[in-house]
Amino acid sequence: MPMNDELKVFAGCSNPGLADEICGCLDIRRSGLRISRFSNDNLSVQIEENVRERDVFVVQAFTEPASDRILELLITMDALRSASARRITAVIPYFSYGRSDKKDAPRISIAGRLIADLLRTAGADRVLTMDLHAEQVHGFFSIPVDHLTAIPIVAAHVEKTCEMANAVVVATDAGGAKRAGKFATRLRLPLAIIDKRRVSDTEVRQGHVVGDVAGKDAVVFEDEIATGSTMAETARTLAAAGARQVVAGATHGVLVGHAIDNLREAAIASFTVTNTVEVPKSKRLEKMTVLSVAPLMAEAIRRIHTGESVGALFA
Amino acid sequence: MPMNDELKVFAGCSNPGLADEICGCLDIRRSGLRISRFSNDNLSVQIEENVRERDVFVVQAFTEPASDRILELLITMDALRSASARRITAVIPYFSYGRSDKKDAPRISIAGRLIADLLRTAGADRVLTMDLHAEQVHGFFSIPVDHLTAIPIVAAHVEKTCEMANAVVVATDAGGAKRAGKFATRLRLPLAIIDKRRVSDTEVRQGHVVGDVAGKDAVVFEDEIATGSTMAETARTLAAAGARQVVAGATHGVLVGHAIDNLREAAIASFTVTNTVEVPKSKRLEKMTVLSVAPLMAEAIRRIHTGESVGALFA
Amino acid sequence: MPMNDELKVFAGCSNPGLADEICGCLDIRRSGLRISRFSNDNLSVQIEENVRERDVFVVQAFTEPASDRILELLITMDALRSASARRITAVIPYFSYGRSDKKDAPRISIAGRLIADLLRTAGADRVLTMDLHAEQVHGFFSIPVDHLTAIPIVAAHVEKTCEMANAVVVATDAGGAKRAGKFATRLRLPLAIIDKRRVSDTEVRQGHVVGDVAGKDAVVFEDEIATGSTMAETARTLAAAGARQVVAGATHGVLVGHAIDNLREAAIASFTVTNTVEVPKSKRLEKMTVLSVAPLMAEAIRRIHTGESVGALFA
Amino acid sequence: MPMNDELKVFAGCSNPGLADEICGCLDIRRSGLRISRFSNDNLSVQIEENVRERDVFVVQAFTEPASDRILELLITMDALRSASARRITAVIPYFSYGRSDKKDAPRISIAGRLIADLLRTAGADRVLTMDLHAEQVHGFFSIPVDHLTAIPIVAAHVEKTCEMANAVVVATDAGGAKRAGKFATRLRLPLAIIDKRRVSDTEVRQGHVVGDVAGKDAVVFEDEIATGSTMAETARTLAAAGARQVVAGATHGVLVGHAIDNLREAAIASFTVTNTVEVPKSKRLEKMTVLSVAPLMAEAIRRIHTGESVGALFA
Amino acid sequence: MPMNDELKVFAGCSNPGLADEICGCLDIRRSGLRISRFSNDNLSVQIEENVRERDVFVVQAFTEPASDRILELLITMDALRSASARRITAVIPYFSYGRSDKKDAPRISIAGRLIADLLRTAGADRVLTMDLHAEQVHGFFSIPVDHLTAIPIVAAHVEKTCEMANAVVVATDAGGAKRAGKFATRLRLPLAIIDKRRVSDTEVRQGHVVGDVAGKDAVVFEDEIATGSTMAETARTLAAAGARQVVAGATHGVLVGHAIDNLREAAIASFTVTNTVEVPKSKRLEKMTVLSVAPLMAEAIRRIHTGESVGALFA
Amino acid sequence: MPMNDELKVFAGCSNPGLADEICGCLDIRRSGLRISRFSNDNLSVQIEENVRERDVFVVQAFTEPASDRILELLITMDALRSASARRITAVIPYFSYGRSDKKDAPRISIAGRLIADLLRTAGADRVLTMDLHAEQVHGFFSIPVDHLTAIPIVAAHVEKTCEMANAVVVATDAGGAKRAGKFATRLRLPLAIIDKRRVSDTEVRQGHVVGDVAGKDAVVFEDEIATGSTMAETARTLAAAGARQVVAGATHGVLVGHAIDNLREAAIASFTVTNTVEVPKSKRLEKMTVLSVAPLMAEAIRRIHTGESVGALFA
Repeated sequence: MPMNDELKVFAGCSNPGLADEICGCLDIRRSGLRISRFSNDNLSVQIEENVRERDVFVVQAFTEPASDRILELLITMDALRSASARRITAVIPYFSYGRSDKKDAPRISIAGRLIADLLRTAGADRVLTMDLHAEQVHGFFSIPVDHLTAIPIVAAHVEKTCEMANAVVVATDAGGAKRAGKFATRLRLPLAIIDKRRVSDTEVRQGHVVGDVAGKDAVVFEDEIATGSTMAETARTLAAAGARQVVAGATHGVLVGHAIDNLREAAIASFTVTNTVEVPKSKRLEKMTVLSVAPLMAEAIRRIHTGESVGALFA
Repeated sequence: MPMNDELKVFAGCSNPGLADEICGCLDIRRSGLRISRFSNDNLSVQIEENVRERDVFVVQAFTEPASDRILELLITMDALRSASARRITAVIPYFSYGRSDKKDAPRISIAGRLIADLLRTAGADRVLTMDLHAEQVHGFFSIPVDHLTAIPIVAAHVEKTCEMANAVVVATDAGGAKRAGKFATRLRLPLAIIDKRRVSDTEVRQGHVVGDVAGKDAVVFEDEIATGSTMAETARTLAAAGARQVVAGATHGVLVGHAIDNLREAAIASFTVTNTVEVPKSKRLEKMTVLSVAPLMAEAIRRIHTGESVGALFA
Repeated sequence: MPMNDELKVFAGCSNPGLADEICGCLDIRRSGLRISRFSNDNLSVQIEENVRERDVFVVQAFTEPASDRILELLITMDALRSASARRITAVIPYFSYGRSDKKDAPRISIAGRLIADLLRTAGADRVLTMDLHAEQVHGFFSIPVDHLTAIPIVAAHVEKTCEMANAVVVATDAGGAKRAGKFATRLRLPLAIIDKRRVSDTEVRQGHVVGDVAGKDAVVFEDEIATGSTMAETARTLAAAGARQVVAGATHGVLVGHAIDNLREAAIASFTVTNTVEVPKSKRLEKMTVLSVAPLMAEAIRRIHTGESVGALFA
Repeated sequence: MPMNDELKVFAGCSNPGLADEICGCLDIRRSGLRISRFSNDNLSVQIEENVRERDVFVVQAFTEPASDRILELLITMDALRSASARRITAVIPYFSYGRSDKKDAPRISIAGRLIADLLRTAGADRVLTMDLHAEQVHGFFSIPVDHLTAIPIVAAHVEKTCEMANAVVVATDAGGAKRAGKFATRLRLPLAIIDKRRVSDTEVRQGHVVGDVAGKDAVVFEDEIATGSTMAETARTLAAAGARQVVAGATHGVLVGHAIDNLREAAIASFTVTNTVEVPKSKRLEKMTVLSVAPLMAEAIRRIHTGESVGALFA
Repeated sequence: MPMNDELKVFAGCSNPGLADEICGCLDIRRSGLRISRFSNDNLSVQIEENVRERDVFVVQAFTEPASDRILELLITMDALRSASARRITAVIPYFSYGRSDKKDAPRISIAGRLIADLLRTAGADRVLTMDLHAEQVHGFFSIPVDHLTAIPIVAAHVEKTCEMANAVVVATDAGGAKRAGKFATRLRLPLAIIDKRRVSDTEVRQGHVVGDVAGKDAVVFEDEIATGSTMAETARTLAAAGARQVVAGATHGVLVGHAIDNLREAAIASFTVTNTVEVPKSKRLEKMTVLSVAPLMAEAIRRIHTGESVGALFA
Repeated sequence: MPMNDELKVFAGCSNPGLADEICGCLDIRRSGLRISRFSNDNLSVQIEENVRERDVFVVQAFTEPASDRILELLITMDALRSASARRITAVIPYFSYGRSDKKDAPRISIAGRLIADLLRTAGADRVLTMDLHAEQVHGFFSIPVDHLTAIPIVAAHVEKTCEMANAVVVATDAGGAKRAGKFATRLRLPLAIIDKRRVSDTEVRQGHVVGDVAGKDAVVFEDEIATGSTMAETARTLAAAGARQVVAGATHGVLVGHAIDNLREAAIASFTVTNTVEVPKSKRLEKMTVLSVAPLMAEAIRRIHTGESVGALFA
C-alpha cells in the first residue's frame, strides 16, 4: 500500500497549549479530536479527520483529573487504531504514575507498570515522555520509548540566572541523590543530601543535611513539585543549616493543593519549572519561571517520524 | 499447593452499600481495601489482608466519576494479582461503557470492547455483571462472564404493585424493542414502540407510537435511566397518544444531572430501579422504589466460588 | 525496505464470481490460489504467486459448507502470512457466525467472537465485511474492521421499483426493529413490528402485528434470508392483518433448504437480495432481483489500500 | 474455591463409539453435548450439564468431514471455557493435519501448526493425541501434549498372529524409515525401505526395494492408511521383489475413497488398524483387524486427571 | 482434578549447595534434574521424577557462566511445563541482569526487562528473588514476584560484630544512596555518600566524601561485590577522608576476576556477604563472613506453597 | 512516516567472517555492534549506528559457546527493537537447537520450539536459516521463516569432484533416510541405510547396512558433523560391508571435541562442509573442503529486503 507521508498531532484535554506550541514548531495544524461526555459520565471521543495509514501522535499529560486524562488517551488511541492509523505514538510529557514504581508496602500495585501495559492494550505503538520519576520506569514499557529530559533546559536557565560561584546542589532525600548528582555534574557543583528518616508510619522526620551547605547557595532539583510542601520544608532545613539562599527547580510543575501558597511563603529565592504540566496564569508567582519543552518535543516527534536519531538530541 | 477454600469480597468506592449487603447475604465480613490519592491525583490502592491463593471478588460499578471508578478497579486487580490471589472476579453491577457498543459514527472507539480488554490486562479472570446495554456486549469479553438480569425482579415488582389488566409494555425506541419484548413476554402483555426519527444531526423528533396504547396503562422499561429526559418525553408522547397512565422501570438508576427534577415532574405514576447504582436518600422520590440485587449477586458469587451452575439462577 | 505498491485480490471457493466482479471494478487480474484436498479430507492451499510485502485481500463468504469455507480462509491467510504478505485483509461479504452473538441459552459459545479470534490467530490484519447481524458484532474483532452496509443499495432499488405512497416497513420480530427502523428512516416510511412470542421451547407463535399495516404495502427487510420460512410466515401474518402486498428485501440471500419453494409460494410480490452470497441461476425466481455489492466492496478495497477514508463511502 | 474432583468426558461427532468405550473403561457416564446446525449451516453446540470448575475432556478425531470436526471441537471448547470449566483437554485420537508439517512447496501453510494454534485460541489447555505423523509435530503445540503411540498394540497383535521367523519390516518410503525402524526394533526384525523417486511433478515412480525381502514375510507399517493405494502399490513392489507375503498395519485406519476396494484386491495377507478412526461394519474386510485404543486412552485420561505419570504408560 | 499437595524443589547448576540447604530447612529431598550437554554444546535437561500437578520451584542464580545458567533455567522450566507441573516458581537468589535496568547509553537493551520476559515465555508462573539492583526492577516482571531482602540479615551481623558507637553508613555513589539509607535507618546510623564524577568516557574520578566520616567507623553496603575494585577504591577514599576503619557488606558476593586479591589487600577490616552466590572455600578470606539466606528463602517457599503471607516475613 | 530504504547487516560473535562475506556480496559495509561483558559476566550490547525505521539483519550461528551466542542474539534484537528498527530478521546459519525437536525421553524440553519462542519474545520479526535438522522444525516458529538448503551446493561439489559412476548415497540411520534420499535423488544415485539398533540405554550397536554398497563408492550426507564419531563409525561399517571408498558431506561443520582427529583417521576419502559454522584454519584437513553459503544467504537477504520471491532461489 502506498505510504502516506503525513504526520498528525492530536491533543487530549490536559495540555492543549503545549500541543499547539509543538504543532507550531512543526509548522502543522493540530488535528481535530472531539472529546465529550455522555450523561452517564462515560467519555466519548471522535477523531475528526481521516487518519488511515498516517503516523499519528497524541499529546496528553497525566494531570488532574488524572483518571479522566488516562482514559481519554486510551479511548483516543483505540479510536485511532480502529480508524486504521499506521502508527500511534503516545506523547506523555508528564507520566504521573511513574512514581508508583516499586513495592514499598505489601499488596500494592506497581501502577506505573500497569499503566504502561494499558497503553499497549489500547493501541500505543510507541511512547514519547520526559523525566520519568526513575530511569528504570523506562523498562516498564514493552514498546519503544523515547525518554527525553528537561535537565539541560532547566540547568541552563539556573546557570544563567543564578549566582553559581558558591553553590551546592541538594537532593531532598536519598532516593533523589542520583538525579541531583546528574544536575550537579552538569553545573560542576558539589552535592549535598537531606537525610530523612521515617520516625513512625505516619511521621517522617526531616533529618539533617549530609554535606556542606553553610554559607552556600543551595540549588534544589526535583522531578516534580506537587504540593510544594517538601520543597518548603527542604528550604527550612537548609536555612537552619546555614544556606545563604535556596533556588528550586523541577521538570514537572504539578502545583496542586496549596502549592502556590506553600511556594510563595517558602524561603525560596526563585524556582523554575517547564510546561510539561500546564501552569495557568493564576498560578504564576513572580519568582517562578516556566520554560517550554515544546521545541525539544517537536524535534523528537519530527525525528521519530522521519527515522532520524533521537539520541542525538542529547549529544 | 493446598487450596485455600476462602472467598473474599472487596469493594471499590462506587457502591460500598451494595457490597456490604452482598457480604451480609454471604455471611462474611467485607475484606479491607485502602484507596487513597497521592497529591498528584494518582490513585493508590492497598489490599489490607493476605489474599494468597484466595478466590477474590471486587465489587465496583462504573458510576460517576466513571474514570476514577474504572482505574480504581484496574489498580485493585493488579494489586490483587501481584499479591498472588488465585482468581479475581470483577463484579461490575453497572458496566456503563456497555453503551459504547458499536460504530454509529466514523472514527470512534467501541469503548465497551476496550474496557473489556483493559480489565483483562489488569488481571481480571472473570466478570460478573448485570443487564448489559445489549446482549452482544457479553461477546466483547475474552474471559468468562456471568451476565445476570434484574428483569424478573423488576417485572415481579411491577406486576405486584400495578394494575396489569389493561396494560401494554412500551419500548422507548426501536433499539429497545427487544428488551421491552422480553419484559412484555414475562408479564404476558402486548408491546408498543415509540418510533423516533433523527431529523438532523442535533435533533431527534419524538415520533409517534407504533402499536395501541390509547386507554391503556403503559409500562416503560429501560436498561438505565440517566438524566430522565427520555423517560419524561416518552411519558408525554404516551399521554398524547391516550395512555391512561405510565409506569416506568429500569435496572440501573443512574440518575444524574436533572434526573430527579425530570422524573418528579414527568407524568409517571411510579418507577422502579435497582441498587446496581447507589441511589442516595436525597434522590429517593416518593413514587420511586429501589429494589435490591444483592441477594441475586450474592448467590451468583457463592455459586461461582463453589462451582455450582449459575445458569440455574434464571430457571 | 522498499514498499511494493501492489494490491492483490485472492478468492476462496465460496464466491469467485463476486471476487471476479470486484477485480473487474479494480481493473486488476485475480491472483491465483490453488485449493485442493488430500485424501484424508484435509485442505491444502497454495498461493500461486509472490506476495512478499504486498497488500493482499482474500474474498471468502461463509456460505455452505461453512466449516470448509472458514478453514479455507484460515489456511489461506496462514500461507499468505508465512509467504511474507505485508498486510492481509479478510474480505467476508457474509459473516454467517455473526448470528451467534449472544448467550441466549446456557453453556453455548458466542461463536461470532470465537471466529473473530480465529481469524486473528490465522493472520488477518483487518476485516472488510457487510451487514453483520448486529452492529455490536463489530466489537468482537480486535483488529480493524470496515463494516459496509447494503441497505442504501437495496433501499434505492425498492424505492425505484415499488409503490411507496402508502407503504410501511415491517420488522419480522422485536430484535429486528432497529434494522427495520433504519430502513424505514431512509425511505421515510412508518414502521410496524411483528410481535412474536415463544409459546414453549420448541414453538414460536407468530404474534400479531404491532402498528398499522391494513391496506398498506408492507416492505419487509432482513439481514439474511436462509430457508425463507420466516419470510413466508411474515407474509401470511401481514396478509391476515390486511396488508395490500408484501415486498421483501435482505442483504444476504443465503437461500438454503426449501428456500426457493418457500419464497415462490409465499405471498410476496417481489424480493431483492445482493450477491454477498452467490445466487446460482437455478435459484433465481422471476420475482427475485440480485443486486451487486461488487462496486461498493471494490471501492472500499481501493480506499483501504490507498489510505483514503472509507467512512466517506456512507456519506 | 473448593476443587471439584470430577472428571467429565464429552464427545464430538467423529467417533462417539471410541468415547463410549473410554467412558466404559473409566466407569463414568459420557457427558451430554448437543451439536446441531442452523439453517445457514453454522454449527451450534450446547453443553448439557454444569462443568464449572470441572476437569473436562473432549474426544474428537479429525475424520471426514474434517473441517466440520475441527470447528465442532473449537466451538465446543469455547463453550466449555465460557461455562467455566477448570481445565479443557482436547483428546484427538487422529490429528489429521499433522501431515501438513513442513513446507514442501513454496507458499503453503504448515497447517498442523496453524491448527495447534487454533486449538489454543479456542481454549484448549492440553492435548492428548496418538501417533502424530512426525514426532516433531509435538513441538507445534504451545500447550502440554501427551503423545501416545499404538505401535506396541499393533506390534503385539502382528507378533501374535503372524509368522515372524523370516520376516522383515518395510518402510513405504524414506520418510517412513524412522517409524518402520521403531517397529522393527520392537519386533527384533530387520528393516527394508522402498526407495521412491518423483519422476515429474505429477508422477512418483515406485522405486526398487532397498534391503533384502526376497522369500521373506514383509511387515509394512504406516501411521495412517487413507485410500490404500500406497499400500496396494507397496504390496505389488514387494511381490515383484520376491516377498513371500505382505502383512500390513497402521494406527489410523482412515479408509476413504476406494480404500476398501484397494485393500481387498491388494496382495496383502492381513492388516491391522486401531479405532482412532471409527471403522464402520461396512468397511470391515475379513482380513482386517481393528484393535481398540480405548483402554490406553482411558488410562492416560485417568492419569492426567489424577496427576500420575503418563510417561510410565510406555515403560 | 485432585490437587497434589506436594512441593518439589529442583536446582540448576549454579548453586546446588544453597538448594540443598533450602531443602534441609523444608525437610524435603531435592528433586532430580539431569543437566548435560550435547556434543554441539546444546544443553539437555531431563526432569527425573513425575511433576504432574505439583507445585515446583527451581533454584538458579545467574552466576558465571551466566548465559548457560539462564538457558538452563529456561529449558528446565519449559520441560517442567510440558511435563504438566501445576505451577513453576523460578527461585533466582541473584538476578544479575537486574543491573541492566535503564538506558544509560543510546541503543542498548534494558536486558533486565528482556530476561524477565524470557522467563515468562519459558513458563515461569512466579519469581522469588533477593535484593534486586533497584527496587523498580520488580516492575519489569508481568508475573508475581516475591522480592526478599538480606539487608536485615547482614545488618544484624554487622551490628553484632562491629563497633557501632561511632559509625556511619557510606554509599559508594549517589545511585546507591537509597539502599545505603535503608541500611543506615535500620542501624540508626548517619549517612554519607561518595560523590563520584565521570571525568571522561573512560575515566571516573573517585570524588570526595559528602558527609562526615573523619574519625568514624565506615560501614559500606552494596547489593553486590563483583571485582571488588569499587570497594577497594572506596576504602582508600574513606581512609583519605579520615575514617577510622572500613567495614563492608553486600548481599551478593559475586567475587569474580581479581576480587579476592582486591579485597585481601583493601583496607577493609571485615566484610560480609550471603550465599545467594556460592562462595567456594578457596575464596573465603579470613576477614570474610558468608551468611546463609537458606532459612529465609525456605520459609518464603513454604509460604508461597501454602498461601501464607510472605510480606509478614519482613515485619 | 517516510520509509527508509536502507538495509543494515549486523553480526554477533559467532561468525563475523560469514557476515563480512555476505556484506561483500551485498556491497554494503557491515554495521557496528559492540558486544562486551560486565564483570558479573552479563552481556552488554550496543548498536553503534542509527537504525530507526531501517530493515536490519543480524547474523549469528548458534556455535560453541552456544548459550552466549543465543543470549547475544536475543539482547541484540531487543536493543534493535527498542532503537526503533522497522524490521528485524534473525539470520541463523546454524540453528543448533533444531536437533531438540521431539520428546524422545519423558520430561524433556523440545528446546527447538522454546528457542523459537524466545527469538520472538526478544523481537525477531523473521528468521533466515539453513538446513534445519528436520523440515518440521520450520513449524516451531510463529514468525515467517526462510529456510534455505545447502544440499545443491554440496551435491554439486561432490558430483564435480568425485567419481559418481558406481556410487550410492548412504544414510547413517533410519532418521536420516529422508535427507539422504533427497541427496540421492539430486545426484540420481541409489540409496542405502545403516540400520542402527539401541542395545541398551547406553549402547547403540552399529547395525548392518540395508541396501547394496559392496564395491561401490559411498556418499554419506548429514546435516551436521559434530564430533565426527558417527561419521567415523559409518565409514568403518561401510568398509566392512565392502564399500570401495567413502565420501562425506554435511551442511554444518560443527567440528567439536576430537572431530578433527576422528575425521583425519577415519577411512574417508574426502569431505565437504559449508561455512555456516566458521571452520578455522587450524581445523582444515587436507581432505576437507569448506564451501561458502554467503552468496546464497546474501541473495536471500536482498530478496527479503526488496520483496522478491525467495522460493525462486530453489528453482
